[in-house]
Amino acid sequence: MTNGLFITFEGGEGAGKTTILNQVYEELTGRGFEVIKTREPGGIRISEKIRDIIHDPLHLEMEERTEALLYAAARRQHLVEKVFPALEKGKIVLCDRFVDSSLVYQGYARGIGVDEVFAINQFVIQDCMPDITLFFDIDPKKGLERISANAEREKNRLDLETIEFHEKVYEGYQLIKSRFPDRFQTVNADRSREAVYEDVLERIITFLNK
Amino acid sequence: MTNGLFITFEGGEGAGKTTILNQVYEELTGRGFEVIKTREPGGIRISEKIRDIIHDPLHLEMEERTEALLYAAARRQHLVEKVFPALEKGKIVLCDRFVDSSLVYQGYARGIGVDEVFAINQFVIQDCMPDITLFFDIDPKKGLERISANAEREKNRLDLETIEFHEKVYEGYQLIKSRFPDRFQTVNADRSREAVYEDVLERIITFLNK
Repeated sequence: MTNGLFITFEGGEGAGKTTILNQVYEELTGRGFEVIKTREPGGIRISEKIRDIIHDPLHLEMEERTEALLYAAARRQHLVEKVFPALEKGKIVLCDRFVDSSLVYQGYARGIGVDEVFAINQFVIQDCMPDITLFFDIDPKKGLERISANAEREKNRLDLETIEFHEKVYEGYQLIKSRFPDRFQTVNADRSREAVYEDVLERIITFLNK
Repeated sequence: MTNGLFITFEGGEGAGKTTILNQVYEELTGRGFEVIKTREPGGIRISEKIRDIIHDPLHLEMEERTEALLYAAARRQHLVEKVFPALEKGKIVLCDRFVDSSLVYQGYARGIGVDEVFAINQFVIQDCMPDITLFFDIDPKKGLERISANAEREKNRLDLETIEFHEKVYEGYQLIKSRFPDRFQTVNADRSREAVYEDVLERIITFLNK
């Protein structure tokens, strides 16, 4: 179904994904490509309401599989309303986190199991896997230092997790990368923003010229 | 994990499941058994909120897989908070509709596919299938006639579906019954309430005496 190009940005906290994604979006748009940038829940009404349930601080009783299913439901609606239509029109879709984040954070780091979380996500994506997934590779400790140095960044629930959790996320990404070697590309994110940006842009341009 | 007995009541609209379930609950409780009766979302806070999203009449854009995942999420939380604890305590759980309803209504009648809907439900139930599933067998036309004759019954969204949809639901149940012959028992629901009740009670007592 996809004539477009589906590019996802993945990595731990403080890896710089979002900043680079925005920069790439501006550049590609400026060069005349049809591009959309998005992240779940992506402004989709139903997905926003699902996120509200997930994020409600009162919902301490929420079980991990319930949470994984709610993320999957929000992802599905975001895909159907925003990502699929853009891909069908041949656009480039830049998406800040996608299915791999669920595999890593919920499947691996929270311990539900990667295969089990992948199974419910196959129901969601129906073979629509990203064409390229850029993994922003940085030592979790350094990533967390960046976050705490950035006073403007809004702290979210994940930023409050222990370093052990973030180490586990890093481990999880190694596992998922080895599972999908064809679409994963590892970007050394422990460099200046400009260097990372040039690297990422070149990779995407190379892919577009194929 | 289950020392209790998990009994589900299934069937099309107007088959009389709920009435009989309540009667069986009273009888078994009166005989000294520890019984709970429930139905999704079962008064579970998170599950109720999920149902509100599903049922919101403004959500016309909700896609069928999003809906299936939301039902699965609500089911999971209801299981974890209410059904699993009761089974672990050795109770008899009488549940008005369960996983088979999703397989039939969403998987078969709505056309997502039974296997696909079963896959996400396996993530939910983790091998906790019902011990007995009582299928209330009645011609869909007769079931609908019963509903329209019952002025007190609150009409829900499914009651407004076409007869073709209800015929498809009936077909779907035949398929699911043939898939799980060991736990399915077919109850002729086209009889007086008392006759159906006696039949159902006898089946449950027989199972309890095994």
